[in-house]
Amino acid sequence: MKILIVNAGSSSLKYQVIDMTDESTLVKGLIERIGIPGSKLKQTVGEDKYTVELPMNDHIEASKQMIKALTDPQHGVLKSMDEISAVGHRVVQGGETFTASTLIDEACLKAIEDNIPLAPLHNPANLMGIQACLKVMPDKPMVAVFDTSFHQTMPPQAYLYGIPYDYYTRLRVRRYGFHGTSHRYVARRGAAFLGKDVNDLRIVTCHLGNGSSICAVDHGKSVDTSMGLTPLEGVLMGTRSGTMDPAALQFIMKSEGINIDEMLEILNKKSGFLGVSGVSSDMRDVENSAAEGNPQAKTALNMLTRGIKKYIAAYAAMMGGVDVVVFTAGIGENSAELREAVLSDMAFMGIELDKAKNKVRGKEADISADGSQVKLLVIPTNEELVIARDTKELVSGKA
Amino acid sequence: MKILIVNAGSSSLKYQVIDMTDESTLVKGLIERIGIPGSKLKQTVGEDKYTVELPMNDHIEASKQMIKALTDPQHGVLKSMDEISAVGHRVVQGGETFTASTLIDEACLKAIEDNIPLAPLHNPANLMGIQACLKVMPDKPMVAVFDTSFHQTMPPQAYLYGIPYDYYTRLRVRRYGFHGTSHRYVARRGAAFLGKDVNDLRIVTCHLGNGSSICAVDHGKSVDTSMGLTPLEGVLMGTRSGTMDPAALQFIMKSEGINIDEMLEILNKKSGFLGVSGVSSDMRDVENSAAEGNPQAKTALNMLTRGIKKYIAAYAAMMGGVDVVVFTAGIGENSAELREAVLSDMAFMGIELDKAKNKVRGKEADISADGSQVKLLVIPTNEELVIARDTKELVSGKA
Repeated sequence: MKILIVNAGSSSLKYQVIDMTDESTLVKGLIERIGIPGSKLKQTVGEDKYTVELPMNDHIEASKQMIKALTDPQHGVLKSMDEISAVGHRVVQGGETFTASTLIDEACLKAIEDNIPLAPLHNPANLMGIQACLKVMPDKPMVAVFDTSFHQTMPPQAYLYGIPYDYYTRLRVRRYGFHGTSHRYVARRGAAFLGKDVNDLRIVTCHLGNGSSICAVDHGKSVDTSMGLTPLEGVLMGTRSGTMDPAALQFIMKSEGINIDEMLEILNKKSGFLGVSGVSSDMRDVENSAAEGNPQAKTALNMLTRGIKKYIAAYAAMMGGVDVVVFTAGIGENSAELREAVLSDMAFMGIELDKAKNKVRGKEADISADGSQVKLLVIPTNEELVIARDTKELVSGKA
Repeated sequence: MKILIVNAGSSSLKYQVIDMTDESTLVKGLIERIGIPGSKLKQTVGEDKYTVELPMNDHIEASKQMIKALTDPQHGVLKSMDEISAVGHRVVQGGETFTASTLIDEACLKAIEDNIPLAPLHNPANLMGIQACLKVMPDKPMVAVFDTSFHQTMPPQAYLYGIPYDYYTRLRVRRYGFHGTSHRYVARRGAAFLGKDVNDLRIVTCHLGNGSSICAVDHGKSVDTSMGLTPLEGVLMGTRSGTMDPAALQFIMKSEGINIDEMLEILNKKSGFLGVSGVSSDMRDVENSAAEGNPQAKTALNMLTRGIKKYIAAYAAMMGGVDVVVFTAGIGENSAELREAVLSDMAFMGIELDKAKNKVRGKEADISADGSQVKLLVIPTNEELVIARDTKELVSGKA
């Protein structure tokens, strides 16, 4: 069984084909600048890199080019689209409607649309991708996999904010959390790596990339996570501020004479590593600048380290202790320095790192010291594989 | 030596006289509705309660009435004001100017004024109180004691927000923290209670009242605290939301068609226990409602418990462990239920409560189980005593 995975942005479309017999990725593609001059498709199959430049005015035209590239006799991987059994779509915001991945039908499309106010940038783009695929592949079963659904097991004390209850019931303001497919994948994979059942463990998963979130996975279920109503909340990120005093918004807006949209633009796009370090949104640049003695860059790194450390300890307290801590995503998988800084001086709660084992990048590894009560793991994430597995299960009627 | 302590609000003036020979409080007074019809002074000396109702148009008139009441032959405690050696004033916001309490002179008054933008409601009121006292007691040495100064030892990674650095240097946006005199007092008193030196301990102090904040006191110094630029940040409070996704403000403002001032009014006055429970800002009412089965009231209590638990663990992680946890202020001193909920299931980090010892209200007590690695204490706070001690030290030239 081969599954096509689609992740649509407002002017982009990422795709993969995964062969479920061995869960291998056959092809990865990216279409950019849809509806913008300079539309381009880039597809990679092993060493072969294939680029097509031609106007694509909308996601339907982009989907047609995707199919053409997938079935291209020279650069493609499929004889025909008949080989594709189903399509799995990434959708950012499932609200409270979706507690799991789901087969796409009219009711599902309607519900994704209903959740647009909660993700005004992402859900419309995700919907465009789904609708384009339905148009060009009307016979394929399709599945929606949500960034939020894994977190729907949080209890009210974790998902509510301390605001009038009415904002929850009437406006649906609550913590939703994101990166759910990643947290779910690395928690389960981490348990399997240790030869254990995820349902027997208390795990803190740290998805640390350009966007970062931490999750408390208690016996397989998300019970708390650092991102909230939006992906702005939580630890310091590439360009996002993370958590701060809500009253600071008022103070800055009045001092600067800016409105709430301008304020949020700054908190989402000009803050985080970029804002604090004054150097870059990329942690490697910030690390280099810190090494050269830039105190703001050092502080930015300390802020992230400190934030992650605090969440690990806080989530351990939520679960009455922690058995496993998992690091994943760009920073989590690759930065041994960050992991060491986060995990140092944590012996009081049973966390002891093996610094030599920690010198690992981008592959599964146990980095805990012998005798560490808490197992410390690096587990590369694979959100596409989760989407493919969910899609396979749902179209086979096994979910 | 007798010290007069003054805490001025915009239409109120609280005062105490403390005899420093035995640190006993001789008299407590409260003047309300200054500049509003119905001005009233209430003074308590032991069992004697004395009330004066007469118009007081400003803080100068109020200060005169305070002096009259203090020296009243029947209800007062002083033969004349000559007995008062100095006056200690509470000031909310000392900004980065004040890292400790200070003798009041022209430069100090100017600096308190400079910090008004950071505390537009409190500092002007505190200043009015100081200026009134300078007017009616021009010969007394006076001292300002700041809610913020204890927290000036925080490192940049604790006090900076993840926003453009320029907002810190240019607008002074940072974490200041509040309740500093309380955190300082209970940390030191807690150490003394255990027969130890505060400089040898890692302490988490939980000041839990109508406003609540948690502080990490590492070897006597504040290294992190939950309140921020303003007292809105941190855990759920009586009517304050505590921390939330900054982007939620934008979402609510647009949905409701309200501006940032209206939003902050809601977050400060209609949120917290009141907003979530829908019942009351008073935790006792919320507890009663929860006992009657109100699920929102139960959730509100769980949110506070959870918030405190998370901060204790997070601050322990900041300090590489914790030796002492102290509970103080209205809720912290009196609610055994809350303390039990917060401290349960924390054995993974050496915290074990003795439930029987925990049945204590408003007095100093060790409530930790035998063998608990972390000492758990109830220490009633006494901010006035801190102000009196600082005032005594400064006027004696010993600080």
